[in-house]
Amino acid sequence: AAESMFNRPVCVQVRCQGCEERRLNVRVSIELLSVSNPVHKKDLAVRLTDDTDPFFLYNLVISEEDFQSLKTQQGLLVDFSAFPQKFIDLLQQCIQEQNKDIPRFLLQLVSSASVLDHTPVFLNVVETNPFKHLTHLSLKFLPGNDAEIKKFLASCLKCLKEDKIKLEEKLKKTEEDLTRQLSYTQQ
Amino acid sequence: AAESMFNRPVCVQVRCQGCEERRLNVRVSIELLSVSNPVHKKDLAVRLTDDTDPFFLYNLVISEEDFQSLKTQQGLLVDFSAFPQKFIDLLQQCIQEQNKDIPRFLLQLVSSASVLDHTPVFLNVVETNPFKHLTHLSLKFLPGNDAEIKKFLASCLKCLKEDKIKLEEKLKKTEEDLTRQLSYTQQ
Repeated sequence: AAESMFNRPVCVQVRCQGCEERRLNVRVSIELLSVSNPVHKKDLAVRLTDDTDPFFLYNLVISEEDFQSLKTQQGLLVDFSAFPQKFIDLLQQCIQEQNKDIPRFLLQLVSSASVLDHTPVFLNVVETNPFKHLTHLSLKFLPGNDAEIKKFLASCLKCLKEDKIKLEEKLKKTEEDLTRQLSYTQQ
Repeated sequence: AAESMFNRPVCVQVRCQGCEERRLNVRVSIELLSVSNPVHKKDLAVRLTDDTDPFFLYNLVISEEDFQSLKTQQGLLVDFSAFPQKFIDLLQQCIQEQNKDIPRFLLQLVSSASVLDHTPVFLNVVETNPFKHLTHLSLKFLPGNDAEIKKFLASCLKCLKEDKIKLEEKLKKTEEDLTRQLSYTQQ
C-alpha cells in the first residue's frame, strides 16, 4: 500500500557536465510505502517524472536505516518520521520562488554525465543568500530501468483510462441534462 | 513509418500445458513497417495485446525473406504482398464465428509453458470440419521484453492523452452550445 504525500510538477534547474543550464518541469511524487516484511515499517519513496517524456523516471527509496546515514552525512536534525514533511516544506519554498528572476530557493537536478541518461542524478535544494549557496538537502536518485518504467507507464495508463471513462460519462450526462432542459423550455 | 492494416480485439482460445482451455480477448494489430535501410522494403509486423493487461505483449515481424521460409514450411500459395490481406481474411472468418457454440473457424493461442509468460506462443487459425481440424496458418510470436512493453505503453499513453484532450474539448463545446441554445429559447 502506498500513501501519497505530494505529487505535482516543480521547476528544476538542470545541470549536466559541459552543458548549458536549462529549466525543466519535473513531477515530484512522494509516497510512504508500507512494508510488512519482515516487520511492519514504512519506506519513503520519491519519484521524479516528466509529463512530456514517458521514459523519464528517477527513483529514490529511503528506509529508516538509510535515513540514519543520510542524517549523519548531511547533518540533518529531524528524525525519519518528520523528514517527509520537512522535504515537502522545502519543495513548497522552491515552488513559491520558481517564477522569480533570482529565486532564493532553487531545485537543482545535477548529473555528472553530459545528458540526463541512465546515470544517477542529485536533486539539490539550494538557498542562495547574498553571501553564498547553501545546500539544504541533496538526494541521490537512480534512473528507472525498463521494468520500472514499464510499471510506471502501466499505472499512468490505468489512471488515464479511468479519467477518460469519467469524462465520457460527464459528456453524456451534460448532453442529456441540457437536452432535457431545452425540450422542457421549448414546450 | 507504419501503415496500419488491422487493429481490433478478437476472441482466442488459450491452450497452455496442463491447463484448462480458456477464452481471451486479444487485440491483433497488423502493420506494414517501411524499412529503408539498406534498401527500401516493407516488413509485416503483427502484435498481440490485451486491453485489460498492460504487460501482455507478443510480437512477430516478418520480412520478405522470412516469408519465403514460412511459405515453404506451411505450404502457402500466396506471395508476400498478398499475405497480409489473406491473414486478415482468415481473422475476419474467425470473428464471424466467434460467438457460435461450435465455430468452424477458431483462433488458438498455444503455449508450451503452463502459463502465458515469457515463452513464445503460436497463433493458429484452425478450421474444424466434420472430418478433422485443419490448421490454415500457424504463426510464432515472441513475448515482448521490458523495453518493448515500455515503448508500447508509451504509445498507448500518447493516444489516450490525445483522446482525453479531444473529449475535454467536446465537453466544453457541448456545454457552451446547449447553454447558448437554452438562453436563446428562454428569451
